[in-house]
Amino acid sequence: MNDVYVLRWGHRPRDFRVTTHVALTARAFGARGFILADVEDGHVKRSIDKVASSWGGLFRFEMGVPWSDAIKEWRKGRGYVVHLTMYGQNLDGRLLSDIRARRGDLLILLGCRKVPREFFTIDVSDFNVAIGNQPHSEVAALAVFLDRLFEGEELNREFEEAKLRVIPSERDKCTASIT
Amino acid sequence: MNDVYVLRWGHRPRDFRVTTHVALTARAFGARGFILADVEDGHVKRSIDKVASSWGGLFRFEMGVPWSDAIKEWRKGRGYVVHLTMYGQNLDGRLLSDIRARRGDLLILLGCRKVPREFFTIDVSDFNVAIGNQPHSEVAALAVFLDRLFEGEELNREFEEAKLRVIPSERDKCTASIT
Repeated sequence: MNDVYVLRWGHRPRDFRVTTHVALTARAFGARGFILADVEDGHVKRSIDKVASSWGGLFRFEMGVPWSDAIKEWRKGRGYVVHLTMYGQNLDGRLLSDIRARRGDLLILLGCRKVPREFFTIDVSDFNVAIGNQPHSEVAALAVFLDRLFEGEELNREFEEAKLRVIPSERDKCTASIT
Repeated sequence: MNDVYVLRWGHRPRDFRVTTHVALTARAFGARGFILADVEDGHVKRSIDKVASSWGGLFRFEMGVPWSDAIKEWRKGRGYVVHLTMYGQNLDGRLLSDIRARRGDLLILLGCRKVPREFFTIDVSDFNVAIGNQPHSEVAALAVFLDRLFEGEELNREFEEAKLRVIPSERDKCTASIT
């Protein structure tokens, strides 16, 4: 496994805040980029750009590309796909090893409302993975998947060219400006 | 540590979908109940009730209680409070042990936009805990906190009186009705 990206499918304008949470979670938990498939949403893009400009890191943001083109291209030349779904196999140690052992870059496919049946097939996804088999949240599923994939190390990462960073504290709310 | 509850502060009507994700994540990751502080939102309540009615489990949902009353009452007679915030101490093994070692029920305090300064003080929170020091999502923070607190065991839990459950699968989308 090399780099990790996230593709979000099924976004509607009213999902603006949830999709923003998905993209910020991708960034904070170690993904290198985010693809908003099929639609464009300037609100989401502006929120992510604003965070990246203050808090640093290289995070690629794309939008509007049709999901099927993005997946086809990814699997042809770049890497493999994990579809996060409550119907998939549960993420145990063996499955994590299988996922980590693959070559190339990993694309995490995240739906929201009912996804196309094809998402479950070998033509689209190398793995269908569940973070529990209860209905909850694509934000939660993504965060736990990345936290387990990177074994918590993602949260210690330094973000390049940050203007701001937090000084962790028991009782205070401290940020430092980096010049 | 006995039972875990989640208190959500700072909800506005336009946050309806994010707050629903927070409550569903609380339920799916092993919390026993959810308090929507200060406001009432029938949309959120209906979404959670609908999920709980199909997928089972005892999950208590309350709304409208002022946050300061809820916290005061909790700490007086019931247990202790962990405030999740990007400014807090990072959640390592030592901090997890300290949190698990406390007596009583654990209330997780989750803000969204700027929280009152008091949230950081000993009068409100026993611990200020960060899931990474980058801006991301209260849904992500809650999911990772509970996943680490329960060491993944929360996802294997059976939900009482469920009408539906998923049959995990590599390639299919299967649910079973329970009669």
